[in-house]
Amino acid sequence: MTQSSTTTSYGPATPAAPSRGRLRPLGLADVRITGGFWADRQRVNATATLEHCVGWMDRLGWTGNFEAVVQGRIGEGRNGREFSDSEVYKLSEALSWERARAGGTDTSETLDRLTGLVARAQHPDGYLSTAFGNPGQPARYTDLEWGHELYCYGHLIQAAVARARAEGDNELTAVGRRVADHVCATFGTDGLQGICGHPEIEPALVELARLTGEQRYLDQAALFVERRGHRTLADTELDQVYFSDDVPVRHARVLRGHAVRALYLAAGAVDVAVETGDDELLAAVEQQWETTVARRTYLTGGMGAHHSGESFGADFELPPDRAYAETCAGVASVMLSWRLLLATGNPRYADLIERTLYNVVAASPAADGRAFFYVNTLHRRERGVLPSPDSVSPRALSSLRSPWFAVSCCPNNVARTMASLAAYLVTTDGGGLQLHQYADAEVEATLDGGRRVAVSVRTAYPREGSVTVRVGRTDDRPWTLSLRVPSWATGAELVEPDGRRRPVSPGTVDVTRVFASGDVVRLDLPVLPRWVEADPRVDAVRGTLAVERGPLVLCVESPDLPGEVDVDAVRVDPSVDPVDRDGQVLVTGSLVRTDTALWPFQPAGTVPRDTTPTQIPLVPYNTWANRGPATMRVWLPRTAP
Amino acid sequence: MTQSSTTTSYGPATPAAPSRGRLRPLGLADVRITGGFWADRQRVNATATLEHCVGWMDRLGWTGNFEAVVQGRIGEGRNGREFSDSEVYKLSEALSWERARAGGTDTSETLDRLTGLVARAQHPDGYLSTAFGNPGQPARYTDLEWGHELYCYGHLIQAAVARARAEGDNELTAVGRRVADHVCATFGTDGLQGICGHPEIEPALVELARLTGEQRYLDQAALFVERRGHRTLADTELDQVYFSDDVPVRHARVLRGHAVRALYLAAGAVDVAVETGDDELLAAVEQQWETTVARRTYLTGGMGAHHSGESFGADFELPPDRAYAETCAGVASVMLSWRLLLATGNPRYADLIERTLYNVVAASPAADGRAFFYVNTLHRRERGVLPSPDSVSPRALSSLRSPWFAVSCCPNNVARTMASLAAYLVTTDGGGLQLHQYADAEVEATLDGGRRVAVSVRTAYPREGSVTVRVGRTDDRPWTLSLRVPSWATGAELVEPDGRRRPVSPGTVDVTRVFASGDVVRLDLPVLPRWVEADPRVDAVRGTLAVERGPLVLCVESPDLPGEVDVDAVRVDPSVDPVDRDGQVLVTGSLVRTDTALWPFQPAGTVPRDTTPTQIPLVPYNTWANRGPATMRVWLPRTAP
Repeated sequence: MTQSSTTTSYGPATPAAPSRGRLRPLGLADVRITGGFWADRQRVNATATLEHCVGWMDRLGWTGNFEAVVQGRIGEGRNGREFSDSEVYKLSEALSWERARAGGTDTSETLDRLTGLVARAQHPDGYLSTAFGNPGQPARYTDLEWGHELYCYGHLIQAAVARARAEGDNELTAVGRRVADHVCATFGTDGLQGICGHPEIEPALVELARLTGEQRYLDQAALFVERRGHRTLADTELDQVYFSDDVPVRHARVLRGHAVRALYLAAGAVDVAVETGDDELLAAVEQQWETTVARRTYLTGGMGAHHSGESFGADFELPPDRAYAETCAGVASVMLSWRLLLATGNPRYADLIERTLYNVVAASPAADGRAFFYVNTLHRRERGVLPSPDSVSPRALSSLRSPWFAVSCCPNNVARTMASLAAYLVTTDGGGLQLHQYADAEVEATLDGGRRVAVSVRTAYPREGSVTVRVGRTDDRPWTLSLRVPSWATGAELVEPDGRRRPVSPGTVDVTRVFASGDVVRLDLPVLPRWVEADPRVDAVRGTLAVERGPLVLCVESPDLPGEVDVDAVRVDPSVDPVDRDGQVLVTGSLVRTDTALWPFQPAGTVPRDTTPTQIPLVPYNTWANRGPATMRVWLPRTAP
Repeated sequence: MTQSSTTTSYGPATPAAPSRGRLRPLGLADVRITGGFWADRQRVNATATLEHCVGWMDRLGWTGNFEAVVQGRIGEGRNGREFSDSEVYKLSEALSWERARAGGTDTSETLDRLTGLVARAQHPDGYLSTAFGNPGQPARYTDLEWGHELYCYGHLIQAAVARARAEGDNELTAVGRRVADHVCATFGTDGLQGICGHPEIEPALVELARLTGEQRYLDQAALFVERRGHRTLADTELDQVYFSDDVPVRHARVLRGHAVRALYLAAGAVDVAVETGDDELLAAVEQQWETTVARRTYLTGGMGAHHSGESFGADFELPPDRAYAETCAGVASVMLSWRLLLATGNPRYADLIERTLYNVVAASPAADGRAFFYVNTLHRRERGVLPSPDSVSPRALSSLRSPWFAVSCCPNNVARTMASLAAYLVTTDGGGLQLHQYADAEVEATLDGGRRVAVSVRTAYPREGSVTVRVGRTDDRPWTLSLRVPSWATGAELVEPDGRRRPVSPGTVDVTRVFASGDVVRLDLPVLPRWVEADPRVDAVRGTLAVERGPLVLCVESPDLPGEVDVDAVRVDPSVDPVDRDGQVLVTGSLVRTDTALWPFQPAGTVPRDTTPTQIPLVPYNTWANRGPATMRVWLPRTAP
């Protein structure tokens, strides 16, 4: 808390800017993605998704709700679910990052319009909701379990922080501060002793404290974190575990209940722990992350094994065909891991971010950026039907990507993540640069003592495994370039500026020297396709294997199989390594035919007939269903021994 | 439809009495269970469960709602969910069967009290609900999706039929007829074109038509069956498939959506088809049953693979750890299979009834009859906590049997099934008797031409496989005694009255002769424990086996494992047959230790360390958790090859 509350220079345009911790983030002005996989996704986000989201929210009246409040007619009828305000805020955050992004588009007009709508609906005391507290509506804070008022504030405040970091003081930031002041006045030590059914206000208030230097926002966030876990929210069919209100954060063993709720809360707890120096709380969340990743996370990085309650399952309960793995849980997982990475520097957090970005966040949007997976299953048994581009899906689980949902958190959450993606690539620790994610990029940073350094990254990753880092601006003193070696990258090699080649192990490799401008460091990652198998306690995938290639999870998809054969006929032979033929991964296996008996459980010994061996093509999981309705599976049964 | 509407002799006291079909049911006065497995369950039901259910409904005000209607104060506050009336009706049905049951207890007092409460709350035009249509409540039929008014009527009418068959004309039957008349007047051809979100009125109206001979009840049931499947109910997050309102009954391929809804509807469709001679409709439901059993049914007979929507999953989607397999779906499955058995005589329907009775319906109640599983999982990963005997579970999925639920259909559904169980044992086709289920029993029946015959059944089934049928009353003409040979009973033998022993195959074995009183027919079924494995498309249990013994599915339960070892450590060796040592089944296998890595998906080739081979005890699935909190699994992984 070193900044003054009157400053208008808000530091780097980055989603989380802790005042302490092992690593410091860079901003969207410091890191520019210039080409490759993520540049393509950012372009689609900028040119299609942002407009798509605004259009749907205008069309459905979710933005109009704010006007209805101002005009005093919201009590006569309101559009959308009780938390639809938050979608306008998430999109405002996305528009702010897009504006701040080097090479981004000018989103000012839309952002100003949305800000104006929101600002005019704010009550004089800072309260702001289109669902509660206005004439003809339920009173404020009368439904903390499901009302989502504080959740909406959290997204509003994140948008306010983003816009301040993008352009300095502005109306949205003022609205966010008034909301936060209202929250502190209402829910403080002597106020309402409640918490929101959906965490999100916690990380937002810490971020606002970081932005403004106001201690009271941090104190309020800490209060909310500590209040949770005492079963003060109502017991419902889903139990208080749904709200993570069953065990206090600092005493919990693992993330549980509703996945997005649990992850947002954990992110906020890390923020509080870092800013208050609460090492016990930080260690508790690190332990929860570790257990959750070891026991409750899909191969894709997806989290949430239950459709019921959109929640984590028990340890090792990871059914591929019932994976919920909500897109927003992927976004929230990146938020949590990023905060832990900044706090600790441990590359395991960057590993999970990479896995989740490539296989959850990137899987959600269609190639055109105008339809989205809400649920990211790992096994699709039925082809389903392509939703109309003109219809709202009432269901999270649609068979294919949908243009919009009755609960439409995922499109906006994808949008804000894509727009701010460059912020997750590189950090500084004052003594050098740490490259966590690999993409064509231009990076500039200030090291301790005001030393300015710059590097250019060039790579065809993840298609190819070679990453070249060329030093631009530097000085005559040594500094350290750190490169993450992903956990799967056994056999990686580093080429030093002097041409020396050496093997490097998964983790982090450091190159410390006096760099000259033009020096090149190269990391060669082995992105050959490889078999992986699951801990035997993951019952749902026993006897199967999956194939990964670099950070990509692959899958078999019905359009690649001959004739009427379904993906469930595929058997693979793990004694033959998968091959990469001009970018097309092939595995050796067979297609079996299984007869249907009247009763599917028979005396042991029946084996389906294997047909002749064949080569089976795989595609990146994040592209599946882009060719239309399809069946798909990630985990492939072994051929009979 | 041969009976007159003025008769007061209502035929056998049996839940379904079709006027046509291959087999005819016997009544509770004709078949008496005298000992063994089911006699024990019936005694617990009579002496504990019935009273338990009444007590809870009085205590929670579900019965009191009817008084509140009469007193005009229901608008001020109502207890329970919108369908709680149906629980009072289900229990009234149970009390009626208990009263009718040979050897049953006298339930008249409670039955009269409940009937009085219900009767006084009925509107002059027959309408009857404590949740709609009274002062201060939503208007009648304003929420067909979720209001459950017609569903409640269905259970009321079933109770009315049961009480009529138990004791002749009475007040409850009059109430039921007035409700049915109101339904015909309101929802007839020229009336409201609606259907209820929850089927149940359909089989009930047919049964009332069978009881009374009134054609209009049958016509109305047929109307409701035909109206469904045209998406007239609202599209919700669960899709109209939840209501089976996506495809007309006669065009559907398989049961789908909410399992209990789908099964009640199918039962009603069979009733309509049988009474109207609609062979196309009957064949459609037979086909749906066949596909559902082949692809969407658990080893236990449980139906419903999704917690979300309490619904069927896709074909072969049968995760043991997320099995919903609601107790009520088991009850409903028995209802459906029983109707198909009566219509066709095909023993496959009796096979599924047996499996479901032993492994779903019998698994639900605790040994003391005062706590119940709502969900019948096949794999429990966490021990959970024993619910207080004094508390209502807000959740269907409690870790162990609960005394009562916020939605408490299962206890009452178990009660009515247990009380009427004898009706499912034996039928007649006029030319003889068909024994479908085996228990100590006394059976009397009238064959064609008024011939009276009687048999006594003695058996220690399912513990032992020998079933002895001794002929009592008979005459000097031949008749046929038919015995079902279960589908698993390879190696069964029949001993004829003359002592000749012959092998018999699964299906039905007939003994046709002139019987003498005292003649004995014996069926020897091999109830040695046996390995079974699943169709390879049941992904969730790949690489595992289960053990069955006779009709019982077995499981491993944590109290039987040494020390801290969890059921998930069990590996079994299917090359060694399971053994039965004095009634205790043991399998050969080992207990493995699995180390937890930070990331549970690793390069192929890692195998857990097997410890020394050991004998692992199994217990009947229907007894699990009777020793307190436990982990449990039915499907056991093979030892590594």
